[in-house]
This record gives sequence, C-alpha cells and structure tokens, in this order.
Amino acid sequence: MILPPSLRWTGTHLELLDQRQLPGSVVFMQLKTWDEVATAISSMAVRGAPAIGIAAAWGVVLAAQAGDDLSCAIRGLRASRPTAVNLGWALKKMESVLASTGSVNCESLAVVAAELQRQDCLLTQRLVDHGVSLLSQGCRVLHHCHTGAIATAGVGTALGVISAAHAHGVLRHAWLDETRPRLQGAALSAWELGCLGVPCTVIVDGASGLLMRRGEVDAVMVGCDRVAANGDVANKIGTYNLALVAKAHGVPFYVCAPGSSIDLATPDGDAITIEERDAQEITHVQGLSVAAPGAQAWNPAFDITPAHLVTGLITEFGVLRPPYRESLRGLSLPNQP
Amino acid sequence: MILPPSLRWTGTHLELLDQRQLPGSVVFMQLKTWDEVATAISSMAVRGAPAIGIAAAWGVVLAAQAGDDLSCAIRGLRASRPTAVNLGWALKKMESVLASTGSVNCESLAVVAAELQRQDCLLTQRLVDHGVSLLSQGCRVLHHCHTGAIATAGVGTALGVISAAHAHGVLRHAWLDETRPRLQGAALSAWELGCLGVPCTVIVDGASGLLMRRGEVDAVMVGCDRVAANGDVANKIGTYNLALVAKAHGVPFYVCAPGSSIDLATPDGDAITIEERDAQEITHVQGLSVAAPGAQAWNPAFDITPAHLVTGLITEFGVLRPPYRESLRGLSLPNQP
Repeated sequence: MILPPSLRWTGTHLELLDQRQLPGSVVFMQLKTWDEVATAISSMAVRGAPAIGIAAAWGVVLAAQAGDDLSCAIRGLRASRPTAVNLGWALKKMESVLASTGSVNCESLAVVAAELQRQDCLLTQRLVDHGVSLLSQGCRVLHHCHTGAIATAGVGTALGVISAAHAHGVLRHAWLDETRPRLQGAALSAWELGCLGVPCTVIVDGASGLLMRRGEVDAVMVGCDRVAANGDVANKIGTYNLALVAKAHGVPFYVCAPGSSIDLATPDGDAITIEERDAQEITHVQGLSVAAPGAQAWNPAFDITPAHLVTGLITEFGVLRPPYRESLRGLSLPNQP
Repeated sequence: MILPPSLRWTGTHLELLDQRQLPGSVVFMQLKTWDEVATAISSMAVRGAPAIGIAAAWGVVLAAQAGDDLSCAIRGLRASRPTAVNLGWALKKMESVLASTGSVNCESLAVVAAELQRQDCLLTQRLVDHGVSLLSQGCRVLHHCHTGAIATAGVGTALGVISAAHAHGVLRHAWLDETRPRLQGAALSAWELGCLGVPCTVIVDGASGLLMRRGEVDAVMVGCDRVAANGDVANKIGTYNLALVAKAHGVPFYVCAPGSSIDLATPDGDAITIEERDAQEITHVQGLSVAAPGAQAWNPAFDITPAHLVTGLITEFGVLRPPYRESLRGLSLPNQP
C-alpha cells in the first residue's frame, strides 16, 4: 500500500487525512473554514508538529478567502494546541505576510502556505539523511509515538529515519512503543512501517527496559514537539521514561528536531507548558471503559526530557551534540527570539 | 462499597470472586468440584499468587468430599497455572496431610486449607504493618499493577500498604500505573482503592517520570512474582522501567514480597524464565483491534528488576535492606531450597 499524504490544498480548500480513522480507514476530510481546521487540530484528526503548523497556515488562507476576521482566526488556530511550537511559527509567518502586504491578499497567503509545505518536504528529507548517517549496519532502533510521513508534509522525522535506514539496507529491526494513551505507535507507526515493508514489532511502553537489558536495542530515535534553548526536549508522554531507560543501558538516545521545533525563546524545559488532555483518553479505549467506574486519571500529553539525556539532536542542519546551548546558537532557525 | 473477599468456604463449597468480571460486576462463582477450581485458576477468574494457592487447597477438599481420585485432582490443580510458586507450595501442604493421616479425611484437609487461608491473612497484615512504618505523613505513593486484597486471602501486599496508610491518615495520594497490557492498575487497583475511599489517580505507565520530575511521588510500592536469592525481582512488565525512573529521581523503590514469593533456589534474575503471552493482549483491548492490521507484538508478562534498584524488600518478617543475599539468608522461608 502507498502512503497517502497528510494534507493537500485543492486550490479551494484543504483536504486533510483523518489520522483518527487510521489504520482502520484512509479518509480525507474536506475542510472549508478556519474553525474546521482548528477543530481538526485540537481533536487530533491532524497530528505531528510539522503537519499541524502547515494545516494551520492553510486555515489562515481559508479564513482570508471567506472574509473572516483574520486576527480572530489566527487566535483560534493558535489556541488549538498549546505545546507544539510549529503551530505558532507557521501562524507568525502568515501574520508577517499580512503585515507586509498591508491588506488581505488570499493569493500571497496561499503562496506562503504552499512554500511552508514545500520547505517541510525538503527539510525533513535533509534531516532524515543526517539521521541515517548515525546508524550502523544491522541496527535495531526503538521508536516512541508516531513521527512518520503523515505527521509532516514530507518524509517524517524519527520514523522517516527508520524507514530510510530500511530502504538503505541498514536497519535490522524497528521496535515500536505502543505509546499510551492514544496508541499512535501501535496504530500509526506500525501501519506506516507496514505500508513501507519495514520489519517491526510493537511493545508496551513499559517493556523497553527488558528489551534493552537483553541487548536488543542499538539506538532510540524519537521526534519532538519543542526543543528549548538549553536542549531540553518536550515530546509525547513516555519519552522521558524511555530516555532514562536508554541512559541506564548506554543506548544512544536521538531526538529528531526540525528547525521549526527549536525555540530559543524558551530557556529550558520548565518553561514549556504541558498540555493536559481529557482523562477519558486513559479510562476509555475506542469508547469502551477500561478503568474502574469513576476512576480519576491524569493525562499530560507530553513530558520533558532534559538535555543531558539526549545523545544528539538530528536537524536539517546536521546532527547537533551537547552542550546544546552552544550548538543551537548560530543556527539559522525560523524561531529566533 | 465494601470490598468483597477473594474467596470464602461456605462449609460445603468454595465461593470465589470472579475477578474477570471486575470492575464491571461483582460476581461470585459457586465452585463444587476440583476441576471447576482448576478452570477458575487457569482462566484467571482468580489471580494473585496467594489467592491462587488457597483456592487450590480448597479444590483438594472438594475432591476429597466427592470421593475423587486425589492424586489426579492435585495433578490437575498443579497444572492449572504451573508457574505460580504459591500454588505448588499450597498443594504440597495438602499432600503432606494426606501422607501423615494415611487416609482421606475431609475434616483434616479442610482444617489445613482454612489454616493456609488464616495464615495468609495474618502474614499479609504483618507485611502491610511493616510497609506502613516506612511511609511518612502526607506521602504520595506510586503503585504498579494490582496487589490488593483480592489477590490474596488477606489485606493484599503493596496495595494493602497503600490502603493501610490511608486508614492510618498517613497517605496523601495514591498514583496508579494503569499497567499495560492487561490494565490491572486502571481496572482492579482503582476499583479496590475506590471501594476503600482511598484518593487515587490513574496514569499511563510512561507518565511516572514527569510525575517524579514534578516532585509528586514520595515512594514507589510494588509487589512481586518472585525474588531471587540475590534480591533480583521478577514482577509485572513495566516494573523495571519504573525502578529506573525512581532511581533517577531518588525516590525510594519498595518491593512487597511475602516469604512464599522468595525463592532462594533461584540464584538471580537471569535464572527466572519470563512468561511470554499472546500478542493479542497488546494489539486488542476488550476484543477491539487497537493496532495496525497484521502488526506483530512482543508480550513478555514480567520483567526483572535488579537488586541494586530495590530500596527495601517488605516481608512479613520485616523490611530487608541490601545486600539482599545476606538479609534473605536466615529467614524462615516456606520455599527453602
């Protein structure tokens, strides 16, 4: 099966792959207003920091086409998910077009959104090339959450590295954390690698320690939602535990971070707001209750992995090494303070 | 709601709480033959090593009452869950009664089964008292899997410590790992603490790091399936990751181990065979597929936590400290080599 794109601008509206329906069905939503885009982001029909940013940019184009209040639309889109930095970045890009043209010009907004999308394609490919260069022949790589092609407008980030390593004949096996509560690893990553013929096995998030103790993992490769100026990383809940487990076993822990996820205005991980989502994502699975009736649950969507646990940051500029405060400075980043 | 007992001898037959129907319904099975007991064990209607052993002892009494072939019954009961240490131990106790009386005496068999049950009640209470003494006022305790009253004939082990700490006014909050893949934390532990009015919150197994980073956990308390002679611990998958995370945060990691779970004949964790269960426990939840179609999964039921990560072993004899090879030696254990 060929991988579908995460999104496509039709010329009049945004066609968006509904990731909630994967892997069961491949369904495209037809989004015609900015608030449909905002809802698609908050409900996680589209997910993955790069894909979210580009979807939001097209949301601004939809608002402009409809003659909606653009500052209201941008505010609404920005509020749709708090942790990923790409969202704010893409919206800032759109705002700067509005500021420079002085009036609402749908055409120029669409040109910028399309350019953001094209750039994502190019830079994820560059990032993936740098990532593959780190892996040695016959490696077994463990991955958390989903960071594949459909999380971006291009080839993905961490999962893209894994797919490319397979294509280059370097990868022996991919281990996939199922990634509770939303099970993106079991559902999306296993589906995407399955489409690409990459040998992979799903594990529960708590099994990574046993796997490493048995010497079955050569590297961990994850994505991120935001990298702070000191190299602290915000990523899907469970990433920090995995980084600690990797450290204890001397397994290198790589974070794939497109420049758009690097935020030098955020001094460190403690300054990152962590989104807390509905407890039902934990207490229910596909609508079925799996917990005791009335059980409380705490559902942070992300956690913070401190920089000292990160072996390398894989970006489109190359692989950065600690100390990250130095290696991050001087990059030509889209999110300069 | 009052917590029901895991099992009860009526005078004529065994009343057994069907744990498979929890937390949805509280249903008691009326078991009148030894093979009904064996089926209840193998199908996990009764689970928890101590509860299994006692149920099996009552199975022998049922066989004697019915005039069944007792060695056939004991063989059948022993095969119902061959890895459980307590099961073999309880059946050995019953065999020794048969050997000493020389004939089948239902009365004396029932006396021994009742005594095993009473002993479990006493020793879990003793273990729990030792555990509570470790906790300081206002503590917040994180727990993995389910180790409560219904897993024993008494007050439980690690979860029993948490309930008792609440009853003593010492506990501020209990955090419950949901414990993938079978979700015993979200289902059974949350239900049991709910019945007892203990304030608790379920988290995904990957969230313990963030919680500790935020300073929200004062101690981790878990049970175990087997303790080796060097203090290595076999317990539910995810325990090892949790121990590594606790170590990284300086949070004490306590393992509750009734003497019947300590096995000095096993030199260390590497000598413990880890049961691998059906991949469907990961790829499906309550019969619904949650993974990509055709996805492979690896499902080890347990992992090994090395002794150096264990702050203390809580037993009915007291709290043991490292080095465990020394502190375990000299205990009056039921499973001496």
